[in-house]
Amino acid sequence: MNNFVYNIPTKVYFGENQLSHLGEELSKFGTRVLMTYGGGSIKKNGLYDRIMEEMKKAGLEVFELSGIEPNPRIDSVRKGAQICKEHNIDVLLAVGGGSTIDATKIMAAAACVEHDAWDFMNEKKAPINKALPIVTILTLSATGSEMDTAAVISNPETDDKIGRLDPNLLPKVSFLDPSLTYSVSQYQTACGSVDIMSHIMEVYFNMNKDLFMLDAFMEGMLKTVVKFAPVAMETPDNYEARANLMWTSSWAINGFINGGRAKAWSCHPMEHQLSAYYDITHGLGLAILTPRWMEYCLDETNVSKYVQFAVNVFGVDANQDDMAIAKEGIQRLYDFFFKTLGLKSTLSELGIGREHFEDMAEKACGGAVLKGFKPLTKEDIVKIYEMCL
Amino acid sequence: MNNFVYNIPTKVYFGENQLSHLGEELSKFGTRVLMTYGGGSIKKNGLYDRIMEEMKKAGLEVFELSGIEPNPRIDSVRKGAQICKEHNIDVLLAVGGGSTIDATKIMAAAACVEHDAWDFMNEKKAPINKALPIVTILTLSATGSEMDTAAVISNPETDDKIGRLDPNLLPKVSFLDPSLTYSVSQYQTACGSVDIMSHIMEVYFNMNKDLFMLDAFMEGMLKTVVKFAPVAMETPDNYEARANLMWTSSWAINGFINGGRAKAWSCHPMEHQLSAYYDITHGLGLAILTPRWMEYCLDETNVSKYVQFAVNVFGVDANQDDMAIAKEGIQRLYDFFFKTLGLKSTLSELGIGREHFEDMAEKACGGAVLKGFKPLTKEDIVKIYEMCL
Repeated sequence: MNNFVYNIPTKVYFGENQLSHLGEELSKFGTRVLMTYGGGSIKKNGLYDRIMEEMKKAGLEVFELSGIEPNPRIDSVRKGAQICKEHNIDVLLAVGGGSTIDATKIMAAAACVEHDAWDFMNEKKAPINKALPIVTILTLSATGSEMDTAAVISNPETDDKIGRLDPNLLPKVSFLDPSLTYSVSQYQTACGSVDIMSHIMEVYFNMNKDLFMLDAFMEGMLKTVVKFAPVAMETPDNYEARANLMWTSSWAINGFINGGRAKAWSCHPMEHQLSAYYDITHGLGLAILTPRWMEYCLDETNVSKYVQFAVNVFGVDANQDDMAIAKEGIQRLYDFFFKTLGLKSTLSELGIGREHFEDMAEKACGGAVLKGFKPLTKEDIVKIYEMCL
Repeated sequence: MNNFVYNIPTKVYFGENQLSHLGEELSKFGTRVLMTYGGGSIKKNGLYDRIMEEMKKAGLEVFELSGIEPNPRIDSVRKGAQICKEHNIDVLLAVGGGSTIDATKIMAAAACVEHDAWDFMNEKKAPINKALPIVTILTLSATGSEMDTAAVISNPETDDKIGRLDPNLLPKVSFLDPSLTYSVSQYQTACGSVDIMSHIMEVYFNMNKDLFMLDAFMEGMLKTVVKFAPVAMETPDNYEARANLMWTSSWAINGFINGGRAKAWSCHPMEHQLSAYYDITHGLGLAILTPRWMEYCLDETNVSKYVQFAVNVFGVDANQDDMAIAKEGIQRLYDFFFKTLGLKSTLSELGIGREHFEDMAEKACGGAVLKGFKPLTKEDIVKIYEMCL
C-alpha cells in the first residue's frame, strides 16, 4: 500500500442561495475580478444578474470574458490571460461547468507568466509556479473541476486535447447550488453522470492493494449516480437527485479516492482523442468506450475487481462463477448507459469511422504504452476503438 | 435538505516514514515548537528520538510538555498555555491520540488570551478568535481529533467533561502513520474502533433527509471498522487493518459526513458523564451505551433508518418485517462489541452503580432535553443508564 498526501483545501458553499457569501469570499483576494462564462445561458436564467448584484454590493470592479466553448480552446485561455494582465486582475470567477472552469484555471496561471498559455499543456516545458486565485460557481455536475487541480484544454490547430494537473490550479472557493443544474438537458445530465462514473472507475479499477474504505466510498458514489441520474433526467428539478450528483461529481475526482493508488487512467486518454478529433461530448465518448475497455481488459488476473464492482455496485448475484459475475457487471453497465440513460452506443451512430484510429491511438498512448488498469499498446487501443464502431 | 459549508483544509501525510516532512511543515509556522505528549511510550518505541532528529535537522527550538492524561485535564492545558506564553511558541506539535491532541488544541487557543483556559469550555463565555497553529502525529485511531475542530477536556474538580468546537482548533498538518498504532493494545484498539463507529452513527441516525452519497459513505466506513477492527486485534502489525482504521477515524468526524444534517449527538453527551464521573475509557462507555440507546429510541417513525443500518452495514436479510430487521441489526451490534471485540457489556461489570445517574443525566441533557436522533429528557437518559447496568 503506497503512501499519499491528502491536501484539498477548497472551501465549498453547498446549497441554494449561498451566493450571499460571494462578495465576502472574492474580497479576500482583492477588488478586481475577471468573470468567465460560456454561451450566455446565465443571462437568460437570471444567474448573471444575481452574481453582478452580489459583486456590486461588495464594491468589486468586474471584467468579463464570455463565450468559452465546450472542450475549451486555447484561444479563449489566451484572451483571458491577456485581460488579467491588462487590468491587473486579483481573482478569477468562473461561472459554468468544467469547460469554463478548466479554461479559467490555465488563464489564472498564464496571467502570471510571459510565455504562451499553450506551453503549460506540456508539463516538462512550463512549470506552474503560481496562479491567480480562482473562485467557481458550478452549473453542471460532471468534471469535478470545481474541487480538483486539473484542466483540459483543446487546440484545434493541432487536434490536441491535453490535461494538466497542478496544485496551484485548485479553486479556493466553490459555490455548488444543485438548483443551478435544473436547466441541464437530459442529454447533458446523462453525459455528466457518465463522466462522474468514469472518474471513479478509472481509480477503482486498479489491482494495487489500497484502502478498503476508499473502495467502499467509490462503490457508494457509483450507486449514487446509478440511483439519481435517471431521477434527474426524469424530473430535472428534483433537488435531492441534483444535489447527490453534484457533490458526487466533486468527490469523484478531488483526489480523496486515490489514496496511494497510482493515478494512470485508461478511458480518459482514449476519449480525449475522440473529442479532440470529432468534438463530441466527453461523457458520451466515455460511455461508448468504457464497457468495451472493460471487456477488452478482463482476464483471470483481474476478474476479482470486476466481481467486486458487479456485486457491490449493481447487486449482481455473487453465487456464480467469477467470469459470469464479471460479464454480468459489464452488461449492467452497458444497459445503464445505453438503455437507462438512453445514450447512443456506438461511434458509427455518431458518424465516426476508423480513419483516424491509428493517429488517435498513437496519441492516446503517447507513442508508447497507456499505463492504466491494464497496460495498453497502440494496437490494443485501436482494437478498443474498433469494438466501439 | 439543509445547506452546508465544507471547509477542511488540514493537510495529511499518510503512511510510513512520512516524518521526513515534519521539519519543513513545522518551519512554515516559525522556529519555536512546543511538543506535547502523554505517558512517555514514545520514548520507549523510538518515536521521540525520530521526531527530535527531524526537528533538530530543521533547526527548530523545541520545548516539551509530557504527561498529558487520557481524558485530558484542564491543568495540563493550563501548563501548556503557560509554556507557550513564556517562550513565545510559534507552533504546537501534539504527538499521541485524541487526548493529547485535544489538550493541545485548547492550549493553542489559551496561549492567545489572558483569561483561564477553562473559560473556553463555555462557548458563550469565551469566543475562540485565534489559536497557535497545531501539527499532529497520531498514535491512536479513535477520536479523529487529527482532522477536526473539536476538543474535549475534563475538570476533575467539578466532575465536568466538556467538548468545544471551533475552526481555529483544526490542525494545519497531521501525520498519520498506521505502523505507529501497531503497539496499541487489543483493548484500546477495540475501544478506539467503537469510538469511530459511534462518531459515524451519531450522524447516520438522523431522520432529516440528507445526501444519499453520504449515507453510503458512512455505511462503507462502518463496514470498514467491522471488517478490520478484529484483524487489528488479532494481528497488531497488520498494516492494511491499521491503515483502514486510521483513515476512517479521521473521516468519521472531520465534518464531511454531516452534509447539512443537524449535528446534535446522543451517545457522546451521555458517555462523557460516565467517563467524567468514573474515568472509564470513552470507547468502552460508548460500546455499553450505544446498543441500549438504539433499543430505547426504536419506534415506528424511525425504524426505516435502523433497517438501512442493519441491511447495509451488517448484511441482515431484508426479507423480513421492518421491526425484526431493526432488532436483528441492534443484536448484531451487541455481538460485534461484546463478542467480536470482547468488551465488557455492562456498567455493573465496571463497578458502576446507579448512585450518580440523576446528576449525570441532568448534565447530559444540559438541564433540558438532549436533542439528538430522538429527543431525550433527563428521565429518558436515566432509563438508558439503567438499561446498561
